[in-house]
Amino acid sequence: MEKVTIAEKLSLFNDHWNPRIVGELNGQHVKLAKFQGEFVWHKHDNEDEMFLVVSGQFNMEFRDRTVVLKENEFLIVPRGVEHRPVAEHEVSVLLFEPASTLNTGNAEKSELTRDTLDTI
Amino acid sequence: MEKVTIAEKLSLFNDHWNPRIVGELNGQHVKLAKFQGEFVWHKHDNEDEMFLVVSGQFNMEFRDRTVVLKENEFLIVPRGVEHRPVAEHEVSVLLFEPASTLNTGNAEKSELTRDTLDTI
Repeated sequence: MEKVTIAEKLSLFNDHWNPRIVGELNGQHVKLAKFQGEFVWHKHDNEDEMFLVVSGQFNMEFRDRTVVLKENEFLIVPRGVEHRPVAEHEVSVLLFEPASTLNTGNAEKSELTRDTLDTI
Repeated sequence: MEKVTIAEKLSLFNDHWNPRIVGELNGQHVKLAKFQGEFVWHKHDNEDEMFLVVSGQFNMEFRDRTVVLKENEFLIVPRGVEHRPVAEHEVSVLLFEPASTLNTGNAEKSELTRDTLDTI
């Protein structure tokens, strides 16, 4: 039961689209990730996902609109809703989602897929 | 599916120890609260709780030690562990916990207990 300093954890990695687990509670994971560029369109059939911007900003694209997310803003993407995060510049994001969540959801597995995540 | 700007939500209330619901996902609530002063000792038998400091700082007291939590730091308090938040000055905190969580846990109900929470 140690506190987590978000900035410290973010200093431990530099790659994009590769979430790290930084906490677990009630079957949910708290993750930190850095996004840059375009991710793949996908959805999660059984998991709602929360994205909280720690620094920077990114666009969460939906099929019919785009939500711009800036520092200290968050968005909950309900299960079943197709989405695609796009970050023009690097952004640091805190994620809350069930431990079962695969980053690329229902999309065909690709070099972006992370089947296992490191805990830091 | 609207984004939440944390500072905007925090500007909507000023009372202490009265969490507001600002999001729900996977049976969990995202809450915002302002703490000042001493809360009551309590535990939650079935819920792990996450406390993320948005601004300010507070002490999370345990029976055997105290964790000082500052801005952009978080702590997960596992179910069953007695704890007491104490804030010398006002602190704004984001909470992540099951929707079933009662703020005063197993402590005798008091004027600090919030049986129902507003969603803002």
